[in-house]
Amino acid sequence: MSQPIPTLHWQGETDGHLILLDQTRLPNEVVELPCHTIEDVWQAIKRLAVRGAPAIGIAAAYGIVLSLKSSGPLSLVERAGERGESGTSCPSPLPNPLHHGEGTGRSAVIAACDCLATSRPTAVNLFWALNRMRDVAHKHGESDPQTLRAALLAEARAIHQEDAEMCAAIGRLGADLLADLPVGSGILTHCNAGALATGGEGTALAVIFELARRGKRPHVWVDETRPLLQGARLTAWELTQRGIDCTLICDSMAAQVMREGRVQAVITGADRIAANGDAANKIGTYGVAVLAKAHDIPFYVAAPSSTFDKSIASGAEIPIEQRPAEEVTHLYSPAILAGRTAPGQNGPAISPIGVNVYNPAFDVTPASLIRAIITERGAITPGR
Amino acid sequence: MSQPIPTLHWQGETDGHLILLDQTRLPNEVVELPCHTIEDVWQAIKRLAVRGAPAIGIAAAYGIVLSLKSSGPLSLVERAGERGESGTSCPSPLPNPLHHGEGTGRSAVIAACDCLATSRPTAVNLFWALNRMRDVAHKHGESDPQTLRAALLAEARAIHQEDAEMCAAIGRLGADLLADLPVGSGILTHCNAGALATGGEGTALAVIFELARRGKRPHVWVDETRPLLQGARLTAWELTQRGIDCTLICDSMAAQVMREGRVQAVITGADRIAANGDAANKIGTYGVAVLAKAHDIPFYVAAPSSTFDKSIASGAEIPIEQRPAEEVTHLYSPAILAGRTAPGQNGPAISPIGVNVYNPAFDVTPASLIRAIITERGAITPGR
Repeated sequence: MSQPIPTLHWQGETDGHLILLDQTRLPNEVVELPCHTIEDVWQAIKRLAVRGAPAIGIAAAYGIVLSLKSSGPLSLVERAGERGESGTSCPSPLPNPLHHGEGTGRSAVIAACDCLATSRPTAVNLFWALNRMRDVAHKHGESDPQTLRAALLAEARAIHQEDAEMCAAIGRLGADLLADLPVGSGILTHCNAGALATGGEGTALAVIFELARRGKRPHVWVDETRPLLQGARLTAWELTQRGIDCTLICDSMAAQVMREGRVQAVITGADRIAANGDAANKIGTYGVAVLAKAHDIPFYVAAPSSTFDKSIASGAEIPIEQRPAEEVTHLYSPAILAGRTAPGQNGPAISPIGVNVYNPAFDVTPASLIRAIITERGAITPGR
Repeated sequence: MSQPIPTLHWQGETDGHLILLDQTRLPNEVVELPCHTIEDVWQAIKRLAVRGAPAIGIAAAYGIVLSLKSSGPLSLVERAGERGESGTSCPSPLPNPLHHGEGTGRSAVIAACDCLATSRPTAVNLFWALNRMRDVAHKHGESDPQTLRAALLAEARAIHQEDAEMCAAIGRLGADLLADLPVGSGILTHCNAGALATGGEGTALAVIFELARRGKRPHVWVDETRPLLQGARLTAWELTQRGIDCTLICDSMAAQVMREGRVQAVITGADRIAANGDAANKIGTYGVAVLAKAHDIPFYVAAPSSTFDKSIASGAEIPIEQRPAEEVTHLYSPAILAGRTAPGQNGPAISPIGVNVYNPAFDVTPASLIRAIITERGAITPGR
């Protein structure tokens, strides 16, 4: 059984719009989130309605299509002065050509790319996808708006389709790499690197799904992944939807489960990988990698090649997003992700009022702790 | 500033009762929980209204006093057939002498000790305190009920007072041991081993409080401690009450904070320590110890000598309490701790319905990872 609503899909043709599965509402509600404007997409990325490095890239590509109205005028102009209910929006002032309505399609698309690039800082697939959309703007920027929009949509769809194919390849190659795992082996994962994080079956979870298809009956240990519980809410949901055997644990239990000999491999996704193989991923991944090493368990990263950022030498240069204290001080609720943090709109406080909080959204696992990075082109062993 | 209500105190004289600070309501509400019967105490321990190994032992000792009505009859007899709202109570059938009302005071106290011993399995201080109460019963079991109750109360008060003194000694000796820590050093702790866990200032936190008094200005990194958030709810509350500089983090962030060089020492409490120095403590402690070792940070355990269980050779023999799945699958709420897990009485679900959960309440840190165990008698270095 696959998921009832796709993670993201384009509805209609050139004049269509993007529909996301609102991941902030899972697992209790399965609801669509239509996005008709670039700001809708910016907000959806910012508040994690769509998340996972590959899925963010795809959503942003479709968002660029939405930045051009199919009828011609630049929708970005109309939206620039508005503010979402959360009080955040694309940064203003926007570039002058847009403000004055004098811009070409090319400059409008470039401005839209600059806008979406501000939504989240760490996942490099976002910038990679936006660069592909910029290239389309450079090639077709002088065309009429309909033609430009059609070209942008074609590119976004290509990014989406390629991602699905990359997921499938990662699944196959990863399952090949783990072919020696005994039937019924335990695999631990952190955060969500499944269909909900990509345009296909996922990265880390694609490997697990493929192992299951090959009769390996993996047992997945799911870190709940505080503070936003992507493991509990999303990974456990994906696995149970597909009938994969799994057990949910708190992040603090991973070490004990490893010590009990229940974990034969760890696989996670990645949000950005430096030239030396250092991999940024959801906060907590680095700790899991240290624990895996201490228990002599191989630690794998599964990610498409678009996750590599060869412009940076090591993980020390990867920008790490810092997120609001309320994600830690208050119980998870969609209102937190939506940025509505006024009293009473969060879940209940679970800590004393005013306590200091450190809430980095990512950490960096050094290449030396990674047995292999599984990409759609094969496995890389940077730490060897 | 110290806490507004003591963790636990005896109200009145021989015919008095126990008053607990209900820790399930912290930090949002500071409320007293009066305990008039042994069953009240059993329930309070079971649902973690009072927790922390030393505090459980003290509460149990006072609970034994409550098992004898000051006017003579055995209150346990009257309560034996009743059930708390959570559907749990002291196990029945109770020993025959109680059921038939024929027992001596001695046998009633022994039965009461057997009853309270079933409340939680891991903290050895519980059994240690109950053994002291059994000894009183053996010595004064033939006395009239008033005299026996007075002797039991004197012993419970002695246990309480000794614990407070042990906390003070642990604080002093621990601060001596850490005297070389630079001013402003970071100290990470997991769960709560403070005043809320003991009859005094705590164990791990007593060391930190003493360092603060000595002008060391420690900065405490507080693991939130899923699933029941004792770090976020209790430790952060104690530290902010006393004006100690602290930062709350999710458990999964400890590794990153260590990697950033912000942690110069880790100190936790313990619930039971085997003869070889292996120490059971709140789930997640073992992982923190592994991470500390990987980052070359000393890991200390602070615990009174009553935490040692020399009857067991190693941590492998320490029984580990398994707790309900709802603590992990649903957001924290006092209703969860109270065992009221019917739909709608928990916090909202944060995982798909029916997902498997593993929820051990404790793990065991091997002696080899412990730099020193700080007791009221001095520091022990079992791993050396």
